Amino acid sequence: MNDTPSYTLPRVWTWEQPSGGQFANINRPVAGATFEAALPIGKHPLQLYSQGTPNGVKVTLLLEELLAAGHAGAEYDAWLVNIFKGEQFGTGFVAINPNSKIPALVDHSTPTPTRIFESGAMLLYLADKFGAFLPATLRTEALNWLFWQMGSAPFLGGGFGHFYAYAPTKIEYPINRYAMETKRQLDVLDRRLAKSRYLAGDEYTIADMASWPWYGWLVLGRLYEAAEFLDVTSYTHVLRWAQEIDARPAAKRGRMVNRTWGTPSEQLHERHDASDFELRTQDKLIPAAPAA
Amino acid sequence: MNDTPSYTLPRVWTWEQPSGGQFANINRPVAGATFEAALPIGKHPLQLYSQGTPNGVKVTLLLEELLAAGHAGAEYDAWLVNIFKGEQFGTGFVAINPNSKIPALVDHSTPTPTRIFESGAMLLYLADKFGAFLPATLRTEALNWLFWQMGSAPFLGGGFGHFYAYAPTKIEYPINRYAMETKRQLDVLDRRLAKSRYLAGDEYTIADMASWPWYGWLVLGRLYEAAEFLDVTSYTHVLRWAQEIDARPAAKRGRMVNRTWGTPSEQLHERHDASDFELRTQDKLIPAAPAA
Repeated sequence: MNDTPSYTLPRVWTWEQPSGGQFANINRPVAGATFEAALPIGKHPLQLYSQGTPNGVKVTLLLEELLAAGHAGAEYDAWLVNIFKGEQFGTGFVAINPNSKIPALVDHSTPTPTRIFESGAMLLYLADKFGAFLPATLRTEALNWLFWQMGSAPFLGGGFGHFYAYAPTKIEYPINRYAMETKRQLDVLDRRLAKSRYLAGDEYTIADMASWPWYGWLVLGRLYEAAEFLDVTSYTHVLRWAQEIDARPAAKRGRMVNRTWGTPSEQLHERHDASDFELRTQDKLIPAAPAA
Repeated sequence: MNDTPSYTLPRVWTWEQPSGGQFANINRPVAGATFEAALPIGKHPLQLYSQGTPNGVKVTLLLEELLAAGHAGAEYDAWLVNIFKGEQFGTGFVAINPNSKIPALVDHSTPTPTRIFESGAMLLYLADKFGAFLPATLRTEALNWLFWQMGSAPFLGGGFGHFYAYAPTKIEYPINRYAMETKRQLDVLDRRLAKSRYLAGDEYTIADMASWPWYGWLVLGRLYEAAEFLDVTSYTHVLRWAQEIDARPAAKRGRMVNRTWGTPSEQLHERHDASDFELRTQDKLIPAAPAA
């Protein structure tokens, strides 16, 4: 590898803004809210505050599948929290997720509203609430893979994605480190999916919904423009699995919700009713003022 | 920051060994076993294959608490899988954890043996199996924090720890990136623990057991010799919480299991019986050949 200058560490780390990169303005060494802002609350039991990133889409994939399977209690309002504008640092959002990351969910059907943060926690909460997409016979194996995704994807997103696509300069050592780990993870999935239709077994579960927006999108060429660099089509079993999920009507809807990029037809900035997918007009593509 | 030379990405990433760093020999771009090796099986229902790293200790913390609370079904054999020697790439281990990371667990009390991989999945599996350390009233909030730990610690361990302590050269940009994120995570915990005795509320749960070996050890000065660099003692509520857990007898035992560094009195390479903690002799500190 080419040489990178070794630098002398300070005795105590201090914050020098900006530290660079596309997300420099939203990365900070402190937590907590930075401005006052109440969150809107719609008419449905479930209130989702999110954006159409892979972590956000995990949850809308499940909600749309639950509705398609007839679980009317899974009706939800999905409100856009634009992380590129720092909306995750408002007081209302931080009260639900003290970690200031999308997605955040509130269940208003419980005696007092229940907050759920972390996409993996939401998948498990909703699967248990509705008794769906986590069959008892596959529960342990599905949770193995669900936790695997939670602990692994930070190397793909926060590691590979950052250094390959977003960091202000291309630094060979971290790109190499995280490209290697991302390929290893793809191979873990590929070996599993060579002998199993879905991650937990024969049924589509929340384990698949957790991994598809990360590893599925990656092999479908939808993340970081890294398909050729990582030779993603060599993971043929992951590609088969990714295409199969991609064709599900609920997945087509789920990935549109709170999405703020791509073509207009791929975007539904807010979702309040099943008909929103059909009624979506160019008007709705302009972010609305937060509802009262 | 000092300048790091930008490098030109190859069209397709290829593996050039060694990529450097203390763990270079165990990082690979492919998954799967590299040698044949059956795993030993002891007399207890639960068989743990692990090492005393933070992820390994999460599980022994819980097992020792379960035994202290009188759950005899939580008796376990803990076998050392030395990741520095690449023992996680044996066929027996990979059959339990296709991701080749410690810890891995098998429950032999089920009709057919049940594999559990990912430390977070083990905490949830055992808490549900024994109905302990995950009270119904705190379940959702405990799982919020459990998933938070799983998704956050890769930035501490795989990010900050790697670039601060293990990478072959000190590179400013990634050290800066991950120091900032680690401090943000400590602040998330500090604000939570300012108003709550434990992460989920008034009771000690698996959420605390997941975070203590990472963030607790960090503020106690036991990770990466980074206490001064990260000014860890400024997170006073995290420190209070870390010290409180550190004083629990079960935590004292749990952190000794499968530990292969530190003073001899801190190490119990294998654990097969409660008396092993008392009977531990210098003899046992020498890794035994794998049992048949």
